[in-house]
Amino acid sequence: MTAVEPRLYQGVRDVLPSELIPRNELLRRLTAVFERFGFAPLETPAMEYLDILVGKYGAEGEKLIYRVERKGDGDALALRYDLTVPLARAVAMHPDLPRPFKRYQIQPVWRADRPQPAQGRFREFYQCDVDTVGTSSLVADAENVAVVHEGILTLGLPNFQVKINHRKLLRGMVAYAGLPPEKDADVLRVVDKRDKIGLDEVRRELVAEGVPVAAVDKLTGLMEIEGAPESVLDRAEAVVGAEEAARKGLADLRELLGHARALGVAPERLVVDLSLTRGLDYYTGPVYEVVLTGPDKFGSLGGGGRYDDLMTLFGREPVPATGVSIGLTRVLAALLKYGLLKTRETPAEALVMRFPDTPIDKALDVATRLRAAGVAVEFFYEPDRLKKQFAHAEKKGIPWAVIVGAAEIARGESNLKRLSTGEQVTLPVADLADFIRRAGPAG
Amino acid sequence: MTAVEPRLYQGVRDVLPSELIPRNELLRRLTAVFERFGFAPLETPAMEYLDILVGKYGAEGEKLIYRVERKGDGDALALRYDLTVPLARAVAMHPDLPRPFKRYQIQPVWRADRPQPAQGRFREFYQCDVDTVGTSSLVADAENVAVVHEGILTLGLPNFQVKINHRKLLRGMVAYAGLPPEKDADVLRVVDKRDKIGLDEVRRELVAEGVPVAAVDKLTGLMEIEGAPESVLDRAEAVVGAEEAARKGLADLRELLGHARALGVAPERLVVDLSLTRGLDYYTGPVYEVVLTGPDKFGSLGGGGRYDDLMTLFGREPVPATGVSIGLTRVLAALLKYGLLKTRETPAEALVMRFPDTPIDKALDVATRLRAAGVAVEFFYEPDRLKKQFAHAEKKGIPWAVIVGAAEIARGESNLKRLSTGEQVTLPVADLADFIRRAGPAG
Repeated sequence: MTAVEPRLYQGVRDVLPSELIPRNELLRRLTAVFERFGFAPLETPAMEYLDILVGKYGAEGEKLIYRVERKGDGDALALRYDLTVPLARAVAMHPDLPRPFKRYQIQPVWRADRPQPAQGRFREFYQCDVDTVGTSSLVADAENVAVVHEGILTLGLPNFQVKINHRKLLRGMVAYAGLPPEKDADVLRVVDKRDKIGLDEVRRELVAEGVPVAAVDKLTGLMEIEGAPESVLDRAEAVVGAEEAARKGLADLRELLGHARALGVAPERLVVDLSLTRGLDYYTGPVYEVVLTGPDKFGSLGGGGRYDDLMTLFGREPVPATGVSIGLTRVLAALLKYGLLKTRETPAEALVMRFPDTPIDKALDVATRLRAAGVAVEFFYEPDRLKKQFAHAEKKGIPWAVIVGAAEIARGESNLKRLSTGEQVTLPVADLADFIRRAGPAG
Repeated sequence: MTAVEPRLYQGVRDVLPSELIPRNELLRRLTAVFERFGFAPLETPAMEYLDILVGKYGAEGEKLIYRVERKGDGDALALRYDLTVPLARAVAMHPDLPRPFKRYQIQPVWRADRPQPAQGRFREFYQCDVDTVGTSSLVADAENVAVVHEGILTLGLPNFQVKINHRKLLRGMVAYAGLPPEKDADVLRVVDKRDKIGLDEVRRELVAEGVPVAAVDKLTGLMEIEGAPESVLDRAEAVVGAEEAARKGLADLRELLGHARALGVAPERLVVDLSLTRGLDYYTGPVYEVVLTGPDKFGSLGGGGRYDDLMTLFGREPVPATGVSIGLTRVLAALLKYGLLKTRETPAEALVMRFPDTPIDKALDVATRLRAAGVAVEFFYEPDRLKKQFAHAEKKGIPWAVIVGAAEIARGESNLKRLSTGEQVTLPVADLADFIRRAGPAG
């Protein structure tokens, strides 16, 4: 065989320990939140039949789908593009799953988009979705709001809000402005950009789209309503209450707010934002989005909404469903930016070292006893000078060194050094783990 | 769009909660073991350049590789076929990773093999690999033995042994039988089948391969040596000690046995098996394999060995490496067979129910307080009859029902029912979580 240059396709990457250790810790905390809310894990295959995915993501999305084939095999396959279509497919194929089916799913998806590594945009990335399938209850929507709220809190991000709105209220607003349902998609696509481009630019773009100025004024007037959630709803109702769709949306939002508070969502974090649309066409009810507050424009950390037409993707009866997605990459980036995430090269808390004359199996026994006590331990393999062993601990960021000497180990003792301070103690081997534990996780 | 029938490509499948909940619990325990031994997590992309994979898996393996393409894009891509070649590629591309690089990796791989779902063989399946790159120390090999030993113990499988052998000892055995190194691969391929076909059939096949009967007798005579590890080594040395490769292999195995015991491997679980080869061509030193003991032929639960030529895959200098792989699917199957794995439909420990006249937000508040105390809770959404709510708990296997009534909740109390026994108590809401916790995880 000819040697080839080791390299990677553009837009995909190795996730090295320094990033994966904190990401896994984040995922452990997130899945614990999901499970406390009664969501169960689901995995679907990376490969789906191509025709399962076709027609679901719009013309632009469809261009980004990766095809898979096996040489000499006729099957038209494709890589998973999101987690929602596979959920719909799985629910249709497993009618025996008890409803409501509450699932979370954390798996990579693949899109042949233009990669922008600096912005955290890759061709392979994780999605982290939570959905409840099979109930129209607004409690399920409120649980989604509570799940992202508690999820983001658990991850340690302090400054965020959960914006909520309702697709029927938006329809009522567009109707109140005198526009027919066919204009909803065009109008919402522009309104959706408000956070990025500002309300004045939204106004200009709507006019450029051919929306009459009087209608634009009505819409943007509504979008300027701010304040406590119930007061925004009251003021909106005074304006658009004559529209049936708006009344339904407003009633749902009142109920959702009550449930969300009962589920422990801090009232000051809930904001009714009448310009929130959540891009995707398929939403039919409440929509919600988590955003960082403060000076940084960080964009959405996650969001979702109700989409009661899910199963019609496969020509089946509609099944009510509501879901929320947490933007892991964004959350990681935010935590890193605020110094709230500790990157590490290794999970090892201690490096067990030895002198050239230390019986190696004695040193291994010390490592074994530490591991049995739950301490993560790397053992230094080569009989190198101590200086080189310490340098290795520094390079990997291992906080403790356990130095096993022949004389000490004969007395059942070892030296323990905290690398950040240089302090050193000699302790019975049986006490090493406790000493490290008492010193705290930071070492 | 035309509706398509929801269906899956053959050989791939949805992993539903009932299987994924216990599998995730298994993985949590396994990764905790890996991390205690100082291994750090690594992920590599699903897509590799095709030429990175070509020439690594033999002609038969190569046919099973899935190609990936994007319409109108010239890149020849393929899906990950194992975790070893991506490790070699990643190590070559990240020379900055501190050596020795100790990593574990648990990701799916894809092979267009003939699927045999009943035997747990799929076209998408997880591999779970642990490798140490950059040291020749036999301590690293012994750690691999200790990691599978502790891993399998942690998963709760009681009856297993770790077989060990050495590629150089095997070479010495073949040399002692009078055969040249070119015959090693042919001989080892037959010897490898001993567990499946028995020693007599191995003998017949070797003769059929053209190996002289005298040579076959010498080889199978060695393979019949059994007993305590050191005694097997002593008896083998008495026979093949004149061969240099055999002497090196025997010395390594003695050292490995000592280290493994110092690392906490139970001596009675270690077996020197002179017919263990571990199929793959690339091993160069110690090889090991975990097998279930007892009447069931369960095959290997995992294994590995030293492969010091890893980086030569990419035309680089050889880098010493040693690794071990745990066969998750097999382990899961064994645990299920012995009734050691509890399948569950949901992580929920309690279903919060209510009567039609219970204020819903009062019931939600009870769910919230349970969740805050760490209890996984599903909330029953619809105001159905209690009978239907209990049936839902039974169907999902949720062990506890919390029934929130208007009168009780006005006094700050709720009813708690253990579904397995039908016992019911009325408790202050603040005491519910403690009661459930004290009753133990089984509910």
